Amino acid sequence: MDAVVYKGPHEVAVEEVDEPTIEHPNDVLIDITTTCICGSDLHMYEGRTAAEPGIVFGHENMGIVSEVGEAVSSLEVGDRVVAPFNVACGHCENCENGKTGFCTNVNPGFAGGAYGYVAMGPYTGGQAEKLRIPYADFNALQLPKGDDHEDAFSLLADVFPTGWHGIELANFEPGDSVAVYGAGPVGLMAAYSAKIRGAADIYVVDRVPSRLALAEEHCDATTINFEEGDPVEQIKAAHGGGVDCGVDAVGYQAVDAEREGGSAYDPARENPAVVINNLIRTVKPTGELGIPGLYVPEDPGAPDDMAAQGRIGIDFGLLFEKGQALGTGQCNVKEYNRQLRDLIIEGRADPSWLVSHRVGLEEAPEMYEAFDNREEGVTKVLLEP
Amino acid sequence: MDAVVYKGPHEVAVEEVDEPTIEHPNDVLIDITTTCICGSDLHMYEGRTAAEPGIVFGHENMGIVSEVGEAVSSLEVGDRVVAPFNVACGHCENCENGKTGFCTNVNPGFAGGAYGYVAMGPYTGGQAEKLRIPYADFNALQLPKGDDHEDAFSLLADVFPTGWHGIELANFEPGDSVAVYGAGPVGLMAAYSAKIRGAADIYVVDRVPSRLALAEEHCDATTINFEEGDPVEQIKAAHGGGVDCGVDAVGYQAVDAEREGGSAYDPARENPAVVINNLIRTVKPTGELGIPGLYVPEDPGAPDDMAAQGRIGIDFGLLFEKGQALGTGQCNVKEYNRQLRDLIIEGRADPSWLVSHRVGLEEAPEMYEAFDNREEGVTKVLLEP
Amino acid sequence: MDAVVYKGPHEVAVEEVDEPTIEHPNDVLIDITTTCICGSDLHMYEGRTAAEPGIVFGHENMGIVSEVGEAVSSLEVGDRVVAPFNVACGHCENCENGKTGFCTNVNPGFAGGAYGYVAMGPYTGGQAEKLRIPYADFNALQLPKGDDHEDAFSLLADVFPTGWHGIELANFEPGDSVAVYGAGPVGLMAAYSAKIRGAADIYVVDRVPSRLALAEEHCDATTINFEEGDPVEQIKAAHGGGVDCGVDAVGYQAVDAEREGGSAYDPARENPAVVINNLIRTVKPTGELGIPGLYVPEDPGAPDDMAAQGRIGIDFGLLFEKGQALGTGQCNVKEYNRQLRDLIIEGRADPSWLVSHRVGLEEAPEMYEAFDNREEGVTKVLLEP
Amino acid sequence: MDAVVYKGPHEVAVEEVDEPTIEHPNDVLIDITTTCICGSDLHMYEGRTAAEPGIVFGHENMGIVSEVGEAVSSLEVGDRVVAPFNVACGHCENCENGKTGFCTNVNPGFAGGAYGYVAMGPYTGGQAEKLRIPYADFNALQLPKGDDHEDAFSLLADVFPTGWHGIELANFEPGDSVAVYGAGPVGLMAAYSAKIRGAADIYVVDRVPSRLALAEEHCDATTINFEEGDPVEQIKAAHGGGVDCGVDAVGYQAVDAEREGGSAYDPARENPAVVINNLIRTVKPTGELGIPGLYVPEDPGAPDDMAAQGRIGIDFGLLFEKGQALGTGQCNVKEYNRQLRDLIIEGRADPSWLVSHRVGLEEAPEMYEAFDNREEGVTKVLLEP
Repeated sequence: MDAVVYKGPHEVAVEEVDEPTIEHPNDVLIDITTTCICGSDLHMYEGRTAAEPGIVFGHENMGIVSEVGEAVSSLEVGDRVVAPFNVACGHCENCENGKTGFCTNVNPGFAGGAYGYVAMGPYTGGQAEKLRIPYADFNALQLPKGDDHEDAFSLLADVFPTGWHGIELANFEPGDSVAVYGAGPVGLMAAYSAKIRGAADIYVVDRVPSRLALAEEHCDATTINFEEGDPVEQIKAAHGGGVDCGVDAVGYQAVDAEREGGSAYDPARENPAVVINNLIRTVKPTGELGIPGLYVPEDPGAPDDMAAQGRIGIDFGLLFEKGQALGTGQCNVKEYNRQLRDLIIEGRADPSWLVSHRVGLEEAPEMYEAFDNREEGVTKVLLEP
Repeated sequence: MDAVVYKGPHEVAVEEVDEPTIEHPNDVLIDITTTCICGSDLHMYEGRTAAEPGIVFGHENMGIVSEVGEAVSSLEVGDRVVAPFNVACGHCENCENGKTGFCTNVNPGFAGGAYGYVAMGPYTGGQAEKLRIPYADFNALQLPKGDDHEDAFSLLADVFPTGWHGIELANFEPGDSVAVYGAGPVGLMAAYSAKIRGAADIYVVDRVPSRLALAEEHCDATTINFEEGDPVEQIKAAHGGGVDCGVDAVGYQAVDAEREGGSAYDPARENPAVVINNLIRTVKPTGELGIPGLYVPEDPGAPDDMAAQGRIGIDFGLLFEKGQALGTGQCNVKEYNRQLRDLIIEGRADPSWLVSHRVGLEEAPEMYEAFDNREEGVTKVLLEP
Repeated sequence: MDAVVYKGPHEVAVEEVDEPTIEHPNDVLIDITTTCICGSDLHMYEGRTAAEPGIVFGHENMGIVSEVGEAVSSLEVGDRVVAPFNVACGHCENCENGKTGFCTNVNPGFAGGAYGYVAMGPYTGGQAEKLRIPYADFNALQLPKGDDHEDAFSLLADVFPTGWHGIELANFEPGDSVAVYGAGPVGLMAAYSAKIRGAADIYVVDRVPSRLALAEEHCDATTINFEEGDPVEQIKAAHGGGVDCGVDAVGYQAVDAEREGGSAYDPARENPAVVINNLIRTVKPTGELGIPGLYVPEDPGAPDDMAAQGRIGIDFGLLFEKGQALGTGQCNVKEYNRQLRDLIIEGRADPSWLVSHRVGLEEAPEMYEAFDNREEGVTKVLLEP
Repeated sequence: MDAVVYKGPHEVAVEEVDEPTIEHPNDVLIDITTTCICGSDLHMYEGRTAAEPGIVFGHENMGIVSEVGEAVSSLEVGDRVVAPFNVACGHCENCENGKTGFCTNVNPGFAGGAYGYVAMGPYTGGQAEKLRIPYADFNALQLPKGDDHEDAFSLLADVFPTGWHGIELANFEPGDSVAVYGAGPVGLMAAYSAKIRGAADIYVVDRVPSRLALAEEHCDATTINFEEGDPVEQIKAAHGGGVDCGVDAVGYQAVDAEREGGSAYDPARENPAVVINNLIRTVKPTGELGIPGLYVPEDPGAPDDMAAQGRIGIDFGLLFEKGQALGTGQCNVKEYNRQLRDLIIEGRADPSWLVSHRVGLEEAPEMYEAFDNREEGVTKVLLEP
């Protein structure tokens, strides 16, 4: 079958690979109908991880069940499902506590597994024609048959739950004011989640006008362009005092503002602590910070030695003085995907506005390039094998 | 009246000062029966804050009501009370949410007030014969009359609730394993709180044998001397995998181990990030870190420039990979002091083992010196005017 | 000044009464700008309580501060405020825990106080020109000056928070499906709250078509007329399986369906257990029931002896088998009124569609009569002194 | 193999039945080492359910894995395990939310399954030599090998977690005062749980002196004999005001006091509402009621028609006036069994004092009779095949 294969830094190809098979009685196979390119795929694409050439990408996958292992009890051939990007066993202590992003069984020596991702276990990615889903009763979420909401449902694999998770990590309550740093897919989904859940006031910070425009149009957010001035001061000017909670949807590749010209993303301006430290200033005393944006324990491409080992200079004295709390980590997709599916089915949520492109699998190489270049208008790319 | 007055670095004196008066109809005055010296008093004593000479110390105060403002409705002359170290109004948003350590009314321009503490508002300390308690209906906790449990009750002003708060910030649940860094009064109270609340396993890390002995005797803790080897490795050897949650009861004056000789506290070995980074390694993925230990936004005596501005190099990549959360900030004493009082009254808790000295007010200067020198056996000093 | 005075069953009059004065240094006086008639006023109006003639009604009050007690620190003459219907001290254990509806200080021998309500303490009602607010720093919520949102803000005294409380008591989570029994003001506000907070599916049950029309128009609810068939079966037919949670916004004056003709409210059909027992059937196993609808420990007008002593025949075996939980009690308005105010200010919520009438105080007698007759279109009446 | 077989009301026999086999790849078989008789077995034994003769009893089971289905990934032959009494699939919505007592997959048409229990699905009981455990990765809790703590671990199948659950349902917080009605195994475990978790004050209500003596000795409880006077008045006399929360560990077979002679349990005095209504009076306003005691939707042996259909006359007006909440339902054992196991391993909990008898399987008939007669000293019986 065809699949998107990593060839080396800044290069992927669509190549023929072996089809997956049932390896364990709890597996199912699916025919992929939609699979998305994720911002975290770019970390591998840019050669900024230990990923080796040959890996098949793709952790945001949905499709139709084509084969069912003999121990699977809730799925049948023909069922339409979306798989959380996490692979999880369902019976370790973390899974039982709902922390399926930190399963201790699927990836020996590590807490957490995923499809098509370096160091996340032996699970081939789904940017391909077929995918094997382990522990399928646990890892496949049933969808209504047919093709309604195909775009929106595909976002249930990762970015919609991950945005929602950011809001949860920030201990958001209805009626709160919230600031979201980063208007990429996760930040936009965080802002959209805040709107759905009854935020009083939403601020979204970024430097790309087209992304901010989406935040304004679909999330009723007040937009803050950090190239136009200190975002903390801008928010405080609009709001008065700090906001109730905040979300870091940027992570370790945060950049300082250039504040002249507003050029493209420039690694030379990377400052991995800038968003967290801005959040500490933005959020009121006793407020909380949700951090779904990725930070890594090792970063060979980091701007300095401290960052290279995942160490960040955080204004902890100020954080303590304000009595803030923070939560981090990848999303436990299963904690939210049923409810979000139901909101989509009932017409109360429709995140499909996030999708900018739906193309054939064979166009993956050019879409990776465009997405990596942060080309205007390339927000979220769906691949259709 | 007599009071403990700060004269300058490493110097306090007992001097005559003006008696407090009712300044507002919601005030009461109390005759102090017990007032404690706190580790955070040492920050001022050592000249490591902006505290100016002349300030009266003392934020851990209890006594007998001697005069009642005309708007006070729940207190009478003769009532025995203990006052939280926080001064709080009771009606701002933070107070209403139980965050009385971050009251926005009592200390203009800042969230939080306290007695006898630099930058915490105009509230004279209680290491004196008398004290004014503002918003007294809100800030004075009634105690049974008489003098039963005087030592234990005096700890309700700060360290018992603050230790309990550390456990709360770590999201402790009964049956959890917990590691507490620091066996000073707050760390010991955190470990004791964990015992009361049904911990399965308690580890306490310090370098002072007499403090570790208290942890073992009164908290049923496994003790870890970090001069004898990496405390993280010691805990993992004893426990296998990480513990469920952890508490930093040390704060920014953390020191690296010397690991030869085990000498006294040595500022030259200060490393303000060492405890947090050890905690990140000690606690399991998805576990939480409670940080009641003090971090400050400015520290003129810091070992380096970054620390001087309250910026700490935290292993945030690892924290994120493990999906940990952390909570910080001074204790909201009122959230816990009623329950802790009741536990003491019913004989279910008795933290008075923490008290090493009860002396007259006039002995304050020598006790400050002994406590500041971390003399063996000087755990907690109570002053009795 | 003029005030609405209870004269006896089914009779109120606008009469001159003494003006309130500052009785305690923590009081303020306000000039009422808006005061609402509440469904629970009808319990007294109908003579179905121990209320004695002479009482001034009115517990949903807003206005402008006209005089300030000398101990009040956060309010000034000219401030615009809305008062929770609860009177609360702010420093008893329940108040500290946010349970301001169960203050143990303001109404000796009872937990909870209110303005203008039988057995709720000595607090004169606000259907009058002026009102005294005790513990004013705690009990008056500041509003933006001017007269924007006057209708919406007046609902912050009771019904908007009480509807929100119903959703809270049901442990509602975003993405849930919810059934609300009763489309009076509280039920409509509960459904509206569910919409604001991200419900996937909302069912509202009543028998009055105009009320159901409001639920459909403003709350995006699916409406269920219980005169047209068993409401439980109707909801299950629409939803499949039970809903995630439910709200009883009816209380002890629930009636059985007539199911022919759909006549007006008929006390002869009262069945105080019918709504709770329907909810138990409507809600799925493990779901929760929020019960803000009033039940009373004594009801002289009850349909049977058991109900007369507040005892209700509940299908507890079924509730237990389904592992349901339930929460009850009057709303602690202060838990929600800040956030709801902010949602109104920011334009995210506007409950003013609930208001059907705004009239002068002198029209109170005819409005009481119309409201008591459940006249079509009389949803919520505001009085303007 | 031998098993305890129900023959009809008040009769069980040890008979040979078919051995279990692996029926599904996710099954394991265990050789039973300990299996307990439960108070809820008596409901069937007394003929007070729809249980048909031929059923094998036993839902509190532990043993050694003897055969492993091919899809099982975490268990091996020789592992020592204890099985929650609930049978649960691990992947339905309720299981994912931790509500494993209400699994919607294992017992078609019903939420919840169990071993050896009428209407709880096709799962043969474990009062036998062998047992099949379905979804074994999810349903078998690993224990340390050997035979340490055999008695204590066997209580992890049901009564220790169920007592703990009662405390959870009551929303118990450390420092609370709590009243437990019923000093049978569940009530004693609830009181013991409260002690472990830091209760300030524990009251246990029963009429059997030997049970009350256990509560006093092992739970540090104040004991209340309801034959000696109204238990509510006794508690209030000891405590002053109501307690913070309460547990009903009795259920629908509650009896009124005789208050003369204190005879044995007498069905003629059954009053299924008496415990709940006493709890409502015992618990303070805003307090919560945890109800793990069994109530059933149909009871052919009930004292009156209303009770026969599971309808109970509850003082709901008083409950509402006090703003109380209540939680019900059988225990989700997996929510607690890991932590409780760890507390036992670490020596912080040892509930084995509850066990009064450990006998061979062949003695089951006489032990059922003794237990059913509430013979003094027959608290908890373990069978050893």
